Amino acid sequence: MAIALRILPGDRTLEVPSGTTILRAAHAAGVDITATCGGRGRCTSCRVKFIEGAVPPPTIMDELQLGGDLVRDGYRLSCQCRVTEPITVELAPPLDERAFQILGAGAGVAGRIPIESGVVKHVVKVALPREEHHQTSDLEQLLEAIGRAPADVHPDLLRQLPAALRESEGEVTVTTFGSTVIGVERGDTALMKFGLAVDIGTTSVVTSLIELESGEQLASVSSLNPQAVFGGDLMSRIAFVQFNPGNLRKLQTRIIGLLNRHIEQLTRESGVLAKWIYKVVVVGNTCMHHLLLGIDPSYVGLAPYAPVLRHPLVIPARELHLTVASEARVCLLPIVAGFVGADAVAVALATRIHESAAVRAAVDIGTNGEVLLGSRERLWACSAPAGPALEGAQIRHGMRGAAGAIDRVWVDGDGIHVHTIGEAAAQGICGSGLIDLIAGLLDAGVIDWTGLIDLDRRAALPPALRDRVRQVGDAREVVLLRSGEAGATREIVLTQEDVRQVQLAKGAIASGIALLQQVAGVGSERVAELMLAGGFGNYVSIQSALRIGLVPPLPAEKIRYVGNAASLGAQLCLVSEPERARAERIARSIEHVSLAAHPQFQDIFVDCMNFPRG
Amino acid sequence: MAIALRILPGDRTLEVPSGTTILRAAHAAGVDITATCGGRGRCTSCRVKFIEGAVPPPTIMDELQLGGDLVRDGYRLSCQCRVTEPITVELAPPLDERAFQILGAGAGVAGRIPIESGVVKHVVKVALPREEHHQTSDLEQLLEAIGRAPADVHPDLLRQLPAALRESEGEVTVTTFGSTVIGVERGDTALMKFGLAVDIGTTSVVTSLIELESGEQLASVSSLNPQAVFGGDLMSRIAFVQFNPGNLRKLQTRIIGLLNRHIEQLTRESGVLAKWIYKVVVVGNTCMHHLLLGIDPSYVGLAPYAPVLRHPLVIPARELHLTVASEARVCLLPIVAGFVGADAVAVALATRIHESAAVRAAVDIGTNGEVLLGSRERLWACSAPAGPALEGAQIRHGMRGAAGAIDRVWVDGDGIHVHTIGEAAAQGICGSGLIDLIAGLLDAGVIDWTGLIDLDRRAALPPALRDRVRQVGDAREVVLLRSGEAGATREIVLTQEDVRQVQLAKGAIASGIALLQQVAGVGSERVAELMLAGGFGNYVSIQSALRIGLVPPLPAEKIRYVGNAASLGAQLCLVSEPERARAERIARSIEHVSLAAHPQFQDIFVDCMNFPRG
Repeated sequence: MAIALRILPGDRTLEVPSGTTILRAAHAAGVDITATCGGRGRCTSCRVKFIEGAVPPPTIMDELQLGGDLVRDGYRLSCQCRVTEPITVELAPPLDERAFQILGAGAGVAGRIPIESGVVKHVVKVALPREEHHQTSDLEQLLEAIGRAPADVHPDLLRQLPAALRESEGEVTVTTFGSTVIGVERGDTALMKFGLAVDIGTTSVVTSLIELESGEQLASVSSLNPQAVFGGDLMSRIAFVQFNPGNLRKLQTRIIGLLNRHIEQLTRESGVLAKWIYKVVVVGNTCMHHLLLGIDPSYVGLAPYAPVLRHPLVIPARELHLTVASEARVCLLPIVAGFVGADAVAVALATRIHESAAVRAAVDIGTNGEVLLGSRERLWACSAPAGPALEGAQIRHGMRGAAGAIDRVWVDGDGIHVHTIGEAAAQGICGSGLIDLIAGLLDAGVIDWTGLIDLDRRAALPPALRDRVRQVGDAREVVLLRSGEAGATREIVLTQEDVRQVQLAKGAIASGIALLQQVAGVGSERVAELMLAGGFGNYVSIQSALRIGLVPPLPAEKIRYVGNAASLGAQLCLVSEPERARAERIARSIEHVSLAAHPQFQDIFVDCMNFPRG
Repeated sequence: MAIALRILPGDRTLEVPSGTTILRAAHAAGVDITATCGGRGRCTSCRVKFIEGAVPPPTIMDELQLGGDLVRDGYRLSCQCRVTEPITVELAPPLDERAFQILGAGAGVAGRIPIESGVVKHVVKVALPREEHHQTSDLEQLLEAIGRAPADVHPDLLRQLPAALRESEGEVTVTTFGSTVIGVERGDTALMKFGLAVDIGTTSVVTSLIELESGEQLASVSSLNPQAVFGGDLMSRIAFVQFNPGNLRKLQTRIIGLLNRHIEQLTRESGVLAKWIYKVVVVGNTCMHHLLLGIDPSYVGLAPYAPVLRHPLVIPARELHLTVASEARVCLLPIVAGFVGADAVAVALATRIHESAAVRAAVDIGTNGEVLLGSRERLWACSAPAGPALEGAQIRHGMRGAAGAIDRVWVDGDGIHVHTIGEAAAQGICGSGLIDLIAGLLDAGVIDWTGLIDLDRRAALPPALRDRVRQVGDAREVVLLRSGEAGATREIVLTQEDVRQVQLAKGAIASGIALLQQVAGVGSERVAELMLAGGFGNYVSIQSALRIGLVPPLPAEKIRYVGNAASLGAQLCLVSEPERARAERIARSIEHVSLAAHPQFQDIFVDCMNFPRG
């Protein structure tokens, strides 16, 4: 049965088979709708707005890509939306402020912003002098060929010049970054131009390999930060540095070693040669930033928590011993304060929170999380030192979100049900599973609002739950899985101490949000949206997050996932120098709020440690 | 007996005791005469011009400091000139063109030019933030204290910041070079500011330690270039590089190792700490320049002999692994062409030949010598690859000008008479001795004009010479010293091959001069002065040099020693950034003449290899 699909602007009415997506129907009729991601629900380019007819319920892709405001306003992704009754839709209406759109969601930066990485490859034929009296040099001939003024060129490159110019009949590819010559290769290598976006978290490190002409992500790799064995959170890592003068170098060596292993893996998987990686953008909190540079972060850990530098740094890769092109430029994004680092700047950049007319919040959930709150008028930031619990560390049976991790938990009268990543045999529990579990145990009355595993109420529990709650010596615990359940080869439990760790973590984040709201004088009703960023933030159930009080009591539709926004911010700066300049402006405009120095922080924090009373 | 000394301008007549120097008499009477060197004949500041009365014969200091033109015009150094009859002198008349004065003579640059090394030490008290909300960093506080705009500061310095700012109550000394921060130390180290002037010759390396506030030379050290064991001249050193890819690194390591030994020695002797050396100026020929940087000089050795770079390079000392302040700036002077290097530029700078109204020539005598000819109108340069013979190398009993070297030789009817450096027991013969010896043997008829040791004429020689000329197998030789003579512990001889080496050396220099005269269209009568530079050039007898045809047949008084002008040029650039800028202008203005490419070079060279016919 054919159904009428009317398309604005242009006012064409198509007769389409019921159940066809709007995108497919339009394309079949020769109506152009841009679908940058290929119609996979990964971007917003094919959005339409419903003008007439019933607006269908949003899909998960609509929610993720368009966000709550646009969905409520009748926007849908045409690739996801099937025609089942006569409708009129407008194609790709411009995104106004109500249609505030972050860059954070989706799979990278390709197609989102104009590409202008600053890395330029010039393929030229360099004429060598033939006449002896002629006064010139290899370098002068080269610079003349690429039309550049004389510039300092590092001796490492000068060393390559004579041979490069005298092979391939003088054809060379000169790579520049801004006014600096960063590479000279013989022959034409114009197509080989890559970069790395690196997000160094306290617990996790994510490195993405990006093709610099298209912005396309070729590969990405994530690992545990190898510094974590010397201290799970920032303060313990700083204490490690202070313990022994050699430890600073040890931490620096560890992270550089990991980045070089990432580079090795990424280049092997993608077939890209490391020498073609010319730009690296690094984000991370102030401590990670300083440790990468080999700068003692001790004073970052002491009031008034001053960083050693804040400005964006650009240094040659050789100085950090990174095994990319030796003259590749490593760009470290700027820092706001001791505990609000380049990662927070990257989140602000990726979420575009600094351009929002309405007040929004962005929470980067991580061991050293940050909270941003504000709009294009003013933007505040504070740190939210959650510790590593939500990344599965310092939890009895915790683990990172890898195969076999329990990432979803439901608690009901029949007991405890789990889902594991990759549906593999259960190995342990990751952050999103922990939140689900504690939310379920709160609802079931196993845990009370103070966080206590309530042995006294055990008798009132359904039998399937009752015998999972127990006391072992002095310790209270809940048996999540018995050996054999969900493929587990051992018992997996949640301890009282695990609950306390989660309370500390969620208390830090919730009190950070609460404090910024207080400083900004913004009640929850005025917060238009809360964006959850960070690897963990992508997987947590919003309902469970609300149940345990990880986030303030906003309507669920005002909360959305924005992906690893810090990493995306790094990618934006990697493919766009204007974005990198924007990051610097953002860093200068963010107003830092020190949690510890705020007179009301202690009260707020204690309050936020408790769970909402159901 | 008092004698009348009339002084202009001011017209005062003093009655002075006979035999008093003009300087001392003037000072005694309260007439100010500047004597920068303290009245030791080491500078020109106390010069006077004779207006009335007999001009006394010039002293050696007059000759050295004032030069032939000024001496002929009645200029004398008042510190050297004693009053013996009534005279009228004018004080310190300005040096006009006829009074062309090089900076090359004397013992360094102190007092010669305004000191403006570019290295500035700022002693400041840095206020650290006390308030946690305040957004700043150690670096920002530091830059604010010294009143500088944000600048990139190398991570090595950033690493030192936190501790430095938190000791000595925030008092630190910040060292800048131009707009770059090159040092941060705790406490007040304002007085500690030093630099090195380095002249890397093919055969010899001279390093001088200079106090950067006064320009005073504290110590100087000279060594054989340790690369010489891999090849005495440039072409053999280039061949060594081409023989094996590892050899380039070996040569670079050798020279850097030597410079670090020089630094160790200079700092030990002077008590200066190496970390207080902030600026290093290096001069050397193109090949030495490239080898120091680890750049393959192979193409410098092949037509068209193009250098890899020519512009002045400024690089941090850490990149060359020099053990001075790690951020010290190493400034390499610019290059003109493959065989006219930074050393020639330094000679031009020190001799001020580019400011001369009359045509002058400057010859830097060394293994890879250079010739400059011209005036402020145009300035030409060519290389004069003399080889190491004049530095005593590749001569049977040759040696450098060290203690025990025969540096003066007289040949007469009584035989051969020598003088040794330090009047020590004779060990061998150095360049100036060789020239004297050959000049003497030419006059005596032992050597003929083609350079042949003439055995046939032996019978005509005085007996004391006759039995010193002999044939050993196929080889002809002259016994300079028998064992026991002048303390020699073995026979010291001059071989036919030695004479040939000297002929090649002097032929290269003489033909360089001749060729430039031809290109410039300047006959010898128009050459106002010939300046001999280089360590060797300081010691050679001008009469002997004329006799063997090392220099063109000019009147002896037109030839003067100007000392190690290349090293002096380096010192000028060390203490004065305007001088370093001037060196760059000079390098751009010098016109390079390629000997090998000149059609008449072969004829001229063959002609210059012979000796003048007595």
